Amino acid sequence: MTAAAEQGEGFEHGAGGASVPLDIVDAWWRAANYLSVGQIYLMRNPLLDAPLEPDDVKPRLLGHWGTSPGLNLVYAHLNRAIVERGTPTLYVCGPGHGGPAMVANTWLDGTYSELFPAITADRAGMERLFRQFSFPGGIPSHAAPETPGSINEGGELGYSLMHAYGAALDSPGLVVACVIGDGEAETGPLAASWRAHTFLNPVTDGAVLPILHLNGFKIANPTLLARIPESELVEFMRGNGYEPLLVTGGFDGEDHMAVHARMADAIDVAYDRIADIRADAAAGAFAVEAPRWPAIVLRTPKGWTGPRVVDGVQVEGTFHSHQVPLSEVRENAEHLAMLEQWLRSYRPDELFDGEGRPVAALDALRPAGDLRMSATPVANAGIVRALALPDTAPFALDVDPDERGATGLAMTTFGTWFAELMRMNPDVRLFGPDEVLSNRLGAVFDVTSRAWAARLHPLDEHLARSGRVIEALSETLMQGLLEGYLLTGRHGLITSYEAFIHIVDSMFNQHAKWLEEASDVPWRGDVASLNYVLSSHVWRQDHNGFSHQDPGFLNVVVNKQAEIVRVYLPPDANTLLAVMRHAFDTQNRVNVVVAGKQPQPQWLSADEADAHVEAGLGVWAWAGNEPGFDGDDPGASVPDVVLACAGDVPTMETIAAAQLLRDRLPELSVRVVNVVDLMRIQDPSHHPHGMRDLEFDAVFTRSSPVIFAFHGYASLIHQLAYRRTNHANLHVRGFIEKGTTTTPFDMLHLNDLDRYRLALDVLRRVPGLAGRPGVAEIADEWHADRAAARAYAYEHGDDPTSITGWRFRAG
Amino acid sequence: MTAAAEQGEGFEHGAGGASVPLDIVDAWWRAANYLSVGQIYLMRNPLLDAPLEPDDVKPRLLGHWGTSPGLNLVYAHLNRAIVERGTPTLYVCGPGHGGPAMVANTWLDGTYSELFPAITADRAGMERLFRQFSFPGGIPSHAAPETPGSINEGGELGYSLMHAYGAALDSPGLVVACVIGDGEAETGPLAASWRAHTFLNPVTDGAVLPILHLNGFKIANPTLLARIPESELVEFMRGNGYEPLLVTGGFDGEDHMAVHARMADAIDVAYDRIADIRADAAAGAFAVEAPRWPAIVLRTPKGWTGPRVVDGVQVEGTFHSHQVPLSEVRENAEHLAMLEQWLRSYRPDELFDGEGRPVAALDALRPAGDLRMSATPVANAGIVRALALPDTAPFALDVDPDERGATGLAMTTFGTWFAELMRMNPDVRLFGPDEVLSNRLGAVFDVTSRAWAARLHPLDEHLARSGRVIEALSETLMQGLLEGYLLTGRHGLITSYEAFIHIVDSMFNQHAKWLEEASDVPWRGDVASLNYVLSSHVWRQDHNGFSHQDPGFLNVVVNKQAEIVRVYLPPDANTLLAVMRHAFDTQNRVNVVVAGKQPQPQWLSADEADAHVEAGLGVWAWAGNEPGFDGDDPGASVPDVVLACAGDVPTMETIAAAQLLRDRLPELSVRVVNVVDLMRIQDPSHHPHGMRDLEFDAVFTRSSPVIFAFHGYASLIHQLAYRRTNHANLHVRGFIEKGTTTTPFDMLHLNDLDRYRLALDVLRRVPGLAGRPGVAEIADEWHADRAAARAYAYEHGDDPTSITGWRFRAG
Repeated sequence: MTAAAEQGEGFEHGAGGASVPLDIVDAWWRAANYLSVGQIYLMRNPLLDAPLEPDDVKPRLLGHWGTSPGLNLVYAHLNRAIVERGTPTLYVCGPGHGGPAMVANTWLDGTYSELFPAITADRAGMERLFRQFSFPGGIPSHAAPETPGSINEGGELGYSLMHAYGAALDSPGLVVACVIGDGEAETGPLAASWRAHTFLNPVTDGAVLPILHLNGFKIANPTLLARIPESELVEFMRGNGYEPLLVTGGFDGEDHMAVHARMADAIDVAYDRIADIRADAAAGAFAVEAPRWPAIVLRTPKGWTGPRVVDGVQVEGTFHSHQVPLSEVRENAEHLAMLEQWLRSYRPDELFDGEGRPVAALDALRPAGDLRMSATPVANAGIVRALALPDTAPFALDVDPDERGATGLAMTTFGTWFAELMRMNPDVRLFGPDEVLSNRLGAVFDVTSRAWAARLHPLDEHLARSGRVIEALSETLMQGLLEGYLLTGRHGLITSYEAFIHIVDSMFNQHAKWLEEASDVPWRGDVASLNYVLSSHVWRQDHNGFSHQDPGFLNVVVNKQAEIVRVYLPPDANTLLAVMRHAFDTQNRVNVVVAGKQPQPQWLSADEADAHVEAGLGVWAWAGNEPGFDGDDPGASVPDVVLACAGDVPTMETIAAAQLLRDRLPELSVRVVNVVDLMRIQDPSHHPHGMRDLEFDAVFTRSSPVIFAFHGYASLIHQLAYRRTNHANLHVRGFIEKGTTTTPFDMLHLNDLDRYRLALDVLRRVPGLAGRPGVAEIADEWHADRAAARAYAYEHGDDPTSITGWRFRAG
Repeated sequence: MTAAAEQGEGFEHGAGGASVPLDIVDAWWRAANYLSVGQIYLMRNPLLDAPLEPDDVKPRLLGHWGTSPGLNLVYAHLNRAIVERGTPTLYVCGPGHGGPAMVANTWLDGTYSELFPAITADRAGMERLFRQFSFPGGIPSHAAPETPGSINEGGELGYSLMHAYGAALDSPGLVVACVIGDGEAETGPLAASWRAHTFLNPVTDGAVLPILHLNGFKIANPTLLARIPESELVEFMRGNGYEPLLVTGGFDGEDHMAVHARMADAIDVAYDRIADIRADAAAGAFAVEAPRWPAIVLRTPKGWTGPRVVDGVQVEGTFHSHQVPLSEVRENAEHLAMLEQWLRSYRPDELFDGEGRPVAALDALRPAGDLRMSATPVANAGIVRALALPDTAPFALDVDPDERGATGLAMTTFGTWFAELMRMNPDVRLFGPDEVLSNRLGAVFDVTSRAWAARLHPLDEHLARSGRVIEALSETLMQGLLEGYLLTGRHGLITSYEAFIHIVDSMFNQHAKWLEEASDVPWRGDVASLNYVLSSHVWRQDHNGFSHQDPGFLNVVVNKQAEIVRVYLPPDANTLLAVMRHAFDTQNRVNVVVAGKQPQPQWLSADEADAHVEAGLGVWAWAGNEPGFDGDDPGASVPDVVLACAGDVPTMETIAAAQLLRDRLPELSVRVVNVVDLMRIQDPSHHPHGMRDLEFDAVFTRSSPVIFAFHGYASLIHQLAYRRTNHANLHVRGFIEKGTTTTPFDMLHLNDLDRYRLALDVLRRVPGLAGRPGVAEIADEWHADRAAARAYAYEHGDDPTSITGWRFRAG
């Protein structure tokens, strides 16, 4: 990585080298193939110094050969382009289970031995390299965080091309070569990625070179794209905006050198075309028309160069080569002989010297230093730039502690701060499924625009050739681009409807797993946290109805490792500001923030909000009615009841419930607790943010009833709090899957989370209260008020009870 | 629905009628547009009998105009084709928030008034129709279960085309017209659906007619497909296998009749082409080559016929028409006047008679009876055929109660039964992401094949022009096809990796929500349950590693309404059989079954398994060591400890742990409880399967320690059991996010779920036991055994401790 790149000025090209003869490319390919097969099969005798014995072979054969020769071919040819041109290139490996190939090449690069010193670049290292693969305590069979140069796990498929485009953003000069398996190409995420060049600027961004690898088969089936007429395939690529370069080879025993010649040509044409596009765009062509980027369609036999026929079954070129073409090597002498013959077919003695080191001839194909794709700092998170974080104070809403409850807009407030963050940092981007404006983040358009490489129209708003906001109607694509952007060292935010963020549950899962794994890889640097703001949330889908009402993403999130996940439910604008400033100041995490976009009462001043977010949860004495409460020692007094809340709407209802209680039962001692950092609730042995029991008990008491109004499913609070002293007295109200098209108050009513219900819960739960004179009358009145509020809404279509009609009064 | 169709012989065409003049089509379109605008705005004065007053307008304007005129245009023109040709047609409405349009047309069809008698086909009904839309307690702004003729919710976008293809399967003679919004077209699911015709047989299936509606804008952005050159758009459609028919119209004030003429032509060409494809295929053409199906690309202005310019801003033809083009109608006299002018521009007095009834002229465009798209039994779940369910006994494994623990394959066993189910029932299909064989369900290929309309190859296996297995590498597509198939009255199963089923979390959510809503719609019939079998589960990803290890789908599932969701964890082959037979015997549910595909010990005979599944959970006395235990009265004795388990691998470990305890501490009273129906654990007030407290306490005791070995995240058990008497003594072991590439035993070890850890938990938890002489030595020995098992695996790559090496011994 050059200093220029670190300063965001683009990737500096290395010096172009001498042209590399194709027989060196072939030798590299054979070496990588040999090392791939070795990893799948061998635990001893890596160089075949002696005839292969059953004991040399692993007892359990677990791995995938089918995709490896194609991946190796691409690697060798990209190396040639890099050596000859000096063009910085990132290799994104999409096909599933490409681990043996990627590891083989990084070992040939020398990077593997540099990063894992035990895996030396000699016989002993090769044996360890082979042995660790798909072996207990070893490495998985797909590209993973342990794989040098990788930003894309080949486990759950479909994300390679969006990761590639995310990596290319704001990486001028970089080529991101992305191999897409034809199996992977059937997934929704991959299908949604083809057109991501619509957001790419040839001047200020890098280039993506898709290499669609058609080896014809998945696990046990042909692939869809491999079985259509070639004319249709060309139309498909052109229809997605690419100029396809077709390379077909290796069938019917074709000479490998002929294939190398065609592949080298295609790579040359592609790199030339990319250079031309950049030059033309820099000269102004992009202002007029989007470029047509090149893409390679590479068709080779699955399991190419492996056994052709095994036990009478055609293996090479069919799905039978997907995993281990020879499956009984220890038991079946014929299989053993075939394996040895297969390994020797690569002529290892020409590829490795007597000590097992790659022969010197291969040096010509090994790019220098960081230009090695396995060593690029882009992939290895070596170039994260610390963010300049604006102060929140100038953006905070003015909340007078004596006049709380005035209406304000949390997201608008956050938007102005976030716009400043984008202004101060060129490597922050905003991704959203067409909701930046509806989420009230329009302030960002004072700083930047939406990127758009397609046709522009005079009436377009905030749309430009260059911009750091990306919007498409695909949560999937937005998430994938952001992941690619973060894993290559930048920063960003994604917004979504709370209900629809479930669309990326699995992507969240896999990203969290990546972060978990990466934290155990010593040479991986820190990456910026993935930040979600879920703003169109379950409680304010006034016209959208049931399909838009789901708070369950939080349940998915809390299952991941505690070191990685954080959940915040800021109740107003200033707490949202404090939460977001903190979120952008973290690394290697996923921060999930739920904050409504609708007008809501504002509760805390900026200073109060900072302190509250720092504490994660706390007593809001001004909202309760607890004589003798001591903020420095909450355990010194014990209220009759605790009203706890998490989430903006439940907080409002809780404060309103406390007000009802104060008006009608002023002698009742009521404590209001607000939770902004949800993981504070969990046991400290389960989560690093978990509050210690003594502190927790001081706030929530050891025996008073706790009525907890929660934004999501009530069971989540029980899941987090089940170890707490006072858990038996914890009564949680949350979303109970009662959704429909109705007013905000009626939604709360339907789910028993409204102020009257919370206050009625208190009447029921505080010992002795239910039987006290007058309480039954109060309960009747609140039941009536509750019913009247609904009746009014159903008659008039409006909702005067809460939000618009209600105003907090201090006690 | 004709008798022929009910017998699976295809949809009988109605008689072709006289040709319908386009001015009738235009009148229908105007009427539908009028009714769409009326729903968004009016709560009184529906026929504009008097000048419009502010009070006639709803106080909160919530709804979406932008997409409505296009949807109405398509509806009117499809009606024309149906009336003229008698071709049964289903309308799948993809664009978001198309509710006003779909409801408008179904009211014009007469269906709405038939199904909702309060919404009469006159002035009073029209007023109620208008008022209920996006109104508290009313209907949402998108097509929903309440919408007659709908099988696709327009809330979370992207599923229309896969639902359409699912509906077309095994529906010969049916045309499924699917309108795809250009916003929706950006989603991954939609992008993955284009090529679903690869699974369509023109003879035995229906046809899908995609109608890509480019109105150019999403919420606040242009759409990707609307901004590419037309030549690229044509290549895109052709590259996806379609013959596109382009209709562009309505721009620059173009005369509507000219657009009608072009649209009518395109519809005619498409229907003719579909008829030709069917005829050619029936004559043998399909054996040679896949047909190229027609598709329509319809480009019209967003918000067409609405206000052109409002407050100086261009609205028609821009994203500003997405929701309510006039937003201040009650307050702004100019807006009110524009609304009235807009409504009157449709000339309502020509469209509705003095009583508000559609005029007789529109009768010519209204298909008869069930041919109305809103009345088709296909969509309204009116044609579900009861399944013939094979007995499980002939397929059960032979398990001798005196010789339990022999190895068997649960999925292979289930596969033979499922194959018989498919043989007996032509309307059962199997969907999977290329895992039918690896999940050991190959027996189905004795009965049917994989459907494949693309090129066939002599070496292909189980691939044919006709077949009821569908495989593509997209969980998304498989789920969507199955949903479409189920919602049109058929039956099916989807298999997936447990970790990757998170990919369809959101689709599961939305399907469950659909079922929840549909259960409140009286005229909707029952539909078959959606059945999942998750067979490559978290505990057996021996070579796949961390990315393939995630049991969190269950957490997502249990959040949905209890009436809908069921979770089963059958511990062996015969329980799996009993569970699956039950699952296929249910309606309107989602049944999630987790059952490993690897060799596992077999525990229960067929009769025992049936009884166990019927009970949902129970004591396995033969696995424990509890003198005096009475199966008829489990509460009569109280063991020292309960070892509970759910899931095949945890069950094996629990039984092994009980054996360790029996061997070394024979005087300890140990009860083994297996849970197969997870929802039995939940409180009966929370789930209909919840066990009553008295029964639950009898099984789990009121005070003995319970060590619960759970397949998934431990917190899920706490979430379900937190109300139970003995919850404080419940210690759950489950997946704690410790995954890697290793042996099955080591995975258990890493997550503290192995037999030694469970037995050690007992030593620690049973009061007084830890201090007893000899117990510390036993603990040391088990710790050593545990470590030795891991060391052996890391050295030899094999795993003799469990599964292969261990055999159950009865006490």
